[in-house]
Amino acid sequence: MRILGIDCGSERTGYGVVETDGRRHRMIDAGVIRVSPRKPFAERLRLIHVGVVDVIEQQRPEQFAVETVFHGVNAKSALKLSQVRGVVMLAAAQAGLQVDEYSPLEIKGSVVGHGHAGKSQVQMMTASLLGLREIIEPHDASDALAVAICHATRSPMKTPKVKAHA
Amino acid sequence: MRILGIDCGSERTGYGVVETDGRRHRMIDAGVIRVSPRKPFAERLRLIHVGVVDVIEQQRPEQFAVETVFHGVNAKSALKLSQVRGVVMLAAAQAGLQVDEYSPLEIKGSVVGHGHAGKSQVQMMTASLLGLREIIEPHDASDALAVAICHATRSPMKTPKVKAHA
Repeated sequence: MRILGIDCGSERTGYGVVETDGRRHRMIDAGVIRVSPRKPFAERLRLIHVGVVDVIEQQRPEQFAVETVFHGVNAKSALKLSQVRGVVMLAAAQAGLQVDEYSPLEIKGSVVGHGHAGKSQVQMMTASLLGLREIIEPHDASDALAVAICHATRSPMKTPKVKAHA
Repeated sequence: MRILGIDCGSERTGYGVVETDGRRHRMIDAGVIRVSPRKPFAERLRLIHVGVVDVIEQQRPEQFAVETVFHGVNAKSALKLSQVRGVVMLAAAQAGLQVDEYSPLEIKGSVVGHGHAGKSQVQMMTASLLGLREIIEPHDASDALAVAICHATRSPMKTPKVKAHA
């Protein structure tokens, strides 16, 4: 089963593609879609959407997972992040993929074993679970892989979804 | 100058197309993109995006305006609404349109003259400013026309934007 995990950001959106049998996971691809904060926001959304569409076309994931936006201290950035999330989820829906969402707590819990792990601990465990000797940089890519691993361990192994919109 | 105004909603997204010389405004089109709340959210985003793309293709607006999401009491619905806003702004950027944003206060101020007008007052004044004898129903369509009128009165008459992404 091939899973695409996305870690949304208004300047840096991480993606990670993981192949899994539900217990063992292998990294297929990972990276970051970078957009300049100097560009108008709508144009940034367009570039992020293009980036995610490209990854889906190249890697053909069967499952799609994304981190939920949590209501943090900064309401303005949460709203911005939600706009990014909108275009990321759109890219999935356009490819006929179901979107599964996980909270930061669930993701850390799946990767490290408890929800209050630090950033570097998540990064180390993500690499370890993928059988890699070094941590994945940048951390946005690593975080996206953690989202995919979370989905792999939490979601029962499903048969590939019939494309609702081919 | 032809302006498309959008009033975002996760179940009902209003659109209104207004032709203006900066002082006099004429309604070209208005309506609502309805999506079932029973559909998965990502699929709703896809349908809203398709709807806005269709309006842009049919009506060829030169300017694009949308209401800002305000940090209301319900954080969860503000985040949802922001996701809708993301795909709406994406549709504009994909058509090479610049996105201008207005707060509810600015929109009411432009249409009624002060920011604390009631819904029905906004609806009546919107119809009046468009030279119509009856109010526009449903109110989502009327609200979208109000966004377009707000843009018409606030934005200096610009020459059409050169398409950044043809």
